[in-house]
Amino acid sequence: MGSTAAEERAMRRALELAAAPGVPLGPNPRVGCVLLAPDGSTVAEGFHRGAGTPHAEADALARAGERARGTTAVVTLEPCNHTGRTGPCAQALAAAGVRRVVFAQPDPNPVAAGGRETLRAAGVDVEHGLLEEAAREVNRVWSIAVGRGRPFVTWKLAVSLDGRSAAADGTSRWISSTAARRDTHWLRALADTMLVGTHTVEVDDPLLTVRDEHDRPRERQPLRVVMGERDLDPGRRVFNGDAETLHLRTRDPHAALAELHARERRHVFLEGGPTLAAAFLRAGLVDEVVAYVAPMLLGDGPQAVAGLGIRTIGDALRPTVTDVTVLDGVPGEAPNVRLTMTPHPEGA
Amino acid sequence: MGSTAAEERAMRRALELAAAPGVPLGPNPRVGCVLLAPDGSTVAEGFHRGAGTPHAEADALARAGERARGTTAVVTLEPCNHTGRTGPCAQALAAAGVRRVVFAQPDPNPVAAGGRETLRAAGVDVEHGLLEEAAREVNRVWSIAVGRGRPFVTWKLAVSLDGRSAAADGTSRWISSTAARRDTHWLRALADTMLVGTHTVEVDDPLLTVRDEHDRPRERQPLRVVMGERDLDPGRRVFNGDAETLHLRTRDPHAALAELHARERRHVFLEGGPTLAAAFLRAGLVDEVVAYVAPMLLGDGPQAVAGLGIRTIGDALRPTVTDVTVLDGVPGEAPNVRLTMTPHPEGA
Repeated sequence: MGSTAAEERAMRRALELAAAPGVPLGPNPRVGCVLLAPDGSTVAEGFHRGAGTPHAEADALARAGERARGTTAVVTLEPCNHTGRTGPCAQALAAAGVRRVVFAQPDPNPVAAGGRETLRAAGVDVEHGLLEEAAREVNRVWSIAVGRGRPFVTWKLAVSLDGRSAAADGTSRWISSTAARRDTHWLRALADTMLVGTHTVEVDDPLLTVRDEHDRPRERQPLRVVMGERDLDPGRRVFNGDAETLHLRTRDPHAALAELHARERRHVFLEGGPTLAAAFLRAGLVDEVVAYVAPMLLGDGPQAVAGLGIRTIGDALRPTVTDVTVLDGVPGEAPNVRLTMTPHPEGA
Repeated sequence: MGSTAAEERAMRRALELAAAPGVPLGPNPRVGCVLLAPDGSTVAEGFHRGAGTPHAEADALARAGERARGTTAVVTLEPCNHTGRTGPCAQALAAAGVRRVVFAQPDPNPVAAGGRETLRAAGVDVEHGLLEEAAREVNRVWSIAVGRGRPFVTWKLAVSLDGRSAAADGTSRWISSTAARRDTHWLRALADTMLVGTHTVEVDDPLLTVRDEHDRPRERQPLRVVMGERDLDPGRRVFNGDAETLHLRTRDPHAALAELHARERRHVFLEGGPTLAAAFLRAGLVDEVVAYVAPMLLGDGPQAVAGLGIRTIGDALRPTVTDVTVLDGVPGEAPNVRLTMTPHPEGA
């Protein structure tokens, strides 16, 4: 059987609840849950607030108490089947006497999956796929990361019109406009990990923090990761107290992402330099490219990306463009153009 | 005294007439003229149709015949004072008994200027400056070219996101999308001269013609100019019969523009290569930059522009952006971004 109109209304509400926290939830997906009485009225609502806090189903069950018995649970994601920081939701729903579960997106996480089988084995009626695309969109990056078993990688580059990421003497402050740099900090805030190579730390000495429009560090900071084999001067700014920092002593993108996956990192924001970017691109490990183009000519200077092994125009890397936005400058500054692209079809 | 409401209405009409031919007029500006009777009614209208045809004033005087006597001539550009392919308009207006002349834009051409003095000496009342900015806009490129005593130079570049104008093996067909290439042909059609270096002819063998959306050459073609000292294979496509071609045996941008100015060329469309573009930029001889950015990565390959002598980010060439347009691709093609820029303030 399909789902009812009341269940569809409840799923739309559950999707709103899922998005309620506003900020990314670290390693966990955003999930919302609505418990419906047999007459279609709402018994309780719940949503997940981040790692270490109750899952959406547990949140709703706790609010419903005894009234959970006989309800239909409408959930944006397949109830989990494993014991992590909290117990498995599939068992909790069955134990609470929930009669039916309607979920939107199947769990892409092989460790957590199996919830529907557990529910059915416990005699609970299970339906899924209602508003699945919308649910997947709420956790787009998480879904891809968990499905692939490695963090989602966004590569950000800021280039002059002639493709330089710095001038001949290495100076690069600033190629991008103020508006583009602020925009970058918004995007950084959506990730849980900043990643650069050791060379970038040595040459540019970046902070790699997320800062507000007054250049103050935000409360929640992504993990800062420096990748590469050489030793680093502990006096570099990336090792200051503004955020956690990790030095991964590898040059292999696969190894780095495996380590970050093990640390439950879901979204890596890769900011350079050219050799590291090329290594990730060549390994097929870039899921999204965000390019800021500044209307400026430098003539000389380091490239934004090192050799990709492309010999001829037919082999050019032609990512799919998902968005083009003109970022108007503050007065006196030129507009910059932001292009957002996907190097390979999502899910591929 | 100022101008009347009838004269302002007549000037707006004269500006419409000036724009009527639609196509560029070779070395000449677009001009419109309206002859007004003392009661403010229109006696005759005229406009210029290109070199070798009557000027706008002569066109209007011919249509008015004897009725020109006692009228006010409202003209978008100062009546010329010199004998070129046609006689001087200032004298013709006075001889026809025109009582008063109101013109918008003073003649920026030192050879043709002096019309107002001639008119006043003949006892004609002269007023100018009415809608001057609008009149200047009608002949923007011509006004700058004539004012500077050299052709206006538009430099067009098509680059990948990483600033390459070709792949490692030199192939460049196509970096730009179909929409961007069509757009380029529209812009070429607005110029009277195409300019490339000898290296571009040897390597890319371009046609340098203006072609329509079916890739057929248009009836009116700009002059094709190849600049550089080395000999060229006469079998190159630029020497075919589709348009005139000139080989300028110089590497000096000043010398090349002086020669083209002497040939009454007003608008040069510079398409490459990187060395030639850099030479024009360094000489301050680029008036407009049109950059097509393709969302593509090449990693290696020739740059769109050779060294500009810029060492540090503070010395970057930061042209003023006058327009950013996203050119949507045909189905299956990525959008390209066109940026239009002015390297130095107009008139500087």
